Amino acid sequence: MGEFDLIQRFFTRPTPRAVLGVGDDCALLQPRPGMHLAVSTDILVSGRHFFPDVDPRTLGHKALAVNLSDLAACGATPIAFTLALSLPNADPAWLEPFSQGLLALADTHGCELIGGDTTQGPLNICITVFGEVPAGLALLRSGAKAGDDIYVSGTLGDANLALTHLLRARQGANLEASSAAAFITLPPEDLALARTRLEQPTPRVALGTALRGIATAAADISDGLLGDLGHILERSGVGATLDTARAFGCMAAHHSSEHAAAQLATEALRPAVLRHVLSGGDDYELVFTAPACQADAVQAAARASQTSVRCIGKIDAATGLRLLDRDGRWMRNDFQSFDHFA
Amino acid sequence: MGEFDLIQRFFTRPTPRAVLGVGDDCALLQPRPGMHLAVSTDILVSGRHFFPDVDPRTLGHKALAVNLSDLAACGATPIAFTLALSLPNADPAWLEPFSQGLLALADTHGCELIGGDTTQGPLNICITVFGEVPAGLALLRSGAKAGDDIYVSGTLGDANLALTHLLRARQGANLEASSAAAFITLPPEDLALARTRLEQPTPRVALGTALRGIATAAADISDGLLGDLGHILERSGVGATLDTARAFGCMAAHHSSEHAAAQLATEALRPAVLRHVLSGGDDYELVFTAPACQADAVQAAARASQTSVRCIGKIDAATGLRLLDRDGRWMRNDFQSFDHFA
Repeated sequence: MGEFDLIQRFFTRPTPRAVLGVGDDCALLQPRPGMHLAVSTDILVSGRHFFPDVDPRTLGHKALAVNLSDLAACGATPIAFTLALSLPNADPAWLEPFSQGLLALADTHGCELIGGDTTQGPLNICITVFGEVPAGLALLRSGAKAGDDIYVSGTLGDANLALTHLLRARQGANLEASSAAAFITLPPEDLALARTRLEQPTPRVALGTALRGIATAAADISDGLLGDLGHILERSGVGATLDTARAFGCMAAHHSSEHAAAQLATEALRPAVLRHVLSGGDDYELVFTAPACQADAVQAAARASQTSVRCIGKIDAATGLRLLDRDGRWMRNDFQSFDHFA
Repeated sequence: MGEFDLIQRFFTRPTPRAVLGVGDDCALLQPRPGMHLAVSTDILVSGRHFFPDVDPRTLGHKALAVNLSDLAACGATPIAFTLALSLPNADPAWLEPFSQGLLALADTHGCELIGGDTTQGPLNICITVFGEVPAGLALLRSGAKAGDDIYVSGTLGDANLALTHLLRARQGANLEASSAAAFITLPPEDLALARTRLEQPTPRVALGTALRGIATAAADISDGLLGDLGHILERSGVGATLDTARAFGCMAAHHSSEHAAAQLATEALRPAVLRHVLSGGDDYELVFTAPACQADAVQAAARASQTSVRCIGKIDAATGLRLLDRDGRWMRNDFQSFDHFA
């Protein structure tokens, strides 16, 4: 199969909203009057962001989901995306499920594939996504104010729990020595749930748009809660105090079975649970801030978007991030967020 | 150097035209009323699109140039771009010249770097570029009409000549047997000129915008003249007759020195010259069509944009691509355009 057959067969679809879709030198979009165009791009590299043998259907989903998550964090409504794909070979057995997973999520969000590029090379997926948001209503990282409440959506830490399990299964005994003390073992059905969180994250698009005019700042959680909250603090010129006891319960695994709940509640695993939740990454939930007077509006936005949200702390005028333990005492922040080159 | 230091140091610059640039979950653009937004994305893979040890400054230039070339082919004016970069390591000695080459070309075209992504992985550059074009005036591949003249801009074939030389220098004797008969050897100064065409192509942005309302169809020449003209023919539902004698003189090398001109004029090298010109690729010139009544307007657009253009054939109602030799006889088309998976 040649390059152009491949594009025609797997990646060319009607684009009723775009002026011009796949097949020309450029695609053409017609932004609506009064709207800003939100743009984000993410690159996923085999062996770095995903296992080379991952199910291509879930990979297609995830590649778009991580980009839609950036639109969600801006309060933008998805409209279109481009796909630049570097592939070792043109294998229909891989391309078909990949494109199905990708386009199923695109359809859910009315996000049209308008163009791209295909080349031979190491497996590598670069998506650029476009959304629209009314001028002045985008959620930025820079708007948090002292006194604001800090919220997170959905569940945190499960993706990283699943990743840790998958890495252990592949690397075997090598990991035992370093992390056995803090390692969480869960029954297969609980792990399957966590793995879905890793491989098929849910971008919080509906929540993001519902928070327009309510949230003062927002970011999506890709590198870990503390790191991504840190971006908000830095750009807003503020600090925060975070109640780790409230964040502790954020993992879905707490609620997936009695067995899992009992295990996660043990004292020995508490540090591991907190590490997954606070710095695990790959959650693709939103962390956002809102003034206390908007607490009801935040809960209404959560209900309207069928997404749970939880208040886990407060923005301070003093810079820096302070963590409180379950007894309300300051605790040491030795959680590391992900950095590709650190 | 960490991921965020790297972005701050090499890739964060003022973006006066964008609503929001680098540093948030999304960038924000405010398209002007009456304008369509043209979008194109290209991925460049190390060892595939460029030699791993290529000068990073020229690589930065080329990575953006190939994207600007797509805007040129649409008649769009560049406004912004995103950069997704996968790097083996964060080496300032590489990043500094890369970003300089990239941003120098961006500045030339007033094209702002508004966002991106940086990750560790095999060297791989994915740029998505944005331009604006008045609604209804974009140059598409689909507008060619029977009777239209076919033009190409600038020079063709030199990039491929340089690539052939560089490959020979690296692979040595392996290539001798297969292509020695048709191999063009040129003095170093002529080769240096050809190499500049390969490594630092000039996107024909000014010509593209000058052709709005004049050209009926356009494409940029990345995979080779015949292949890219073929896209116009396919999408326009027409055919073409191409005068290879007129295309023959398209190489810059013909004009770079008397020695080069004399050599390229030899009968033995004629097939090699034609192959470079017709199917070489990497030219980033424009191939476009215009009705005969617009011939003066085409030349005026060429002068206004200080870009040479040359008429090399005609669009036919009958589908298919016919090549005429220098005696006006049909010749066999056994030229292969580039296909990543063919």
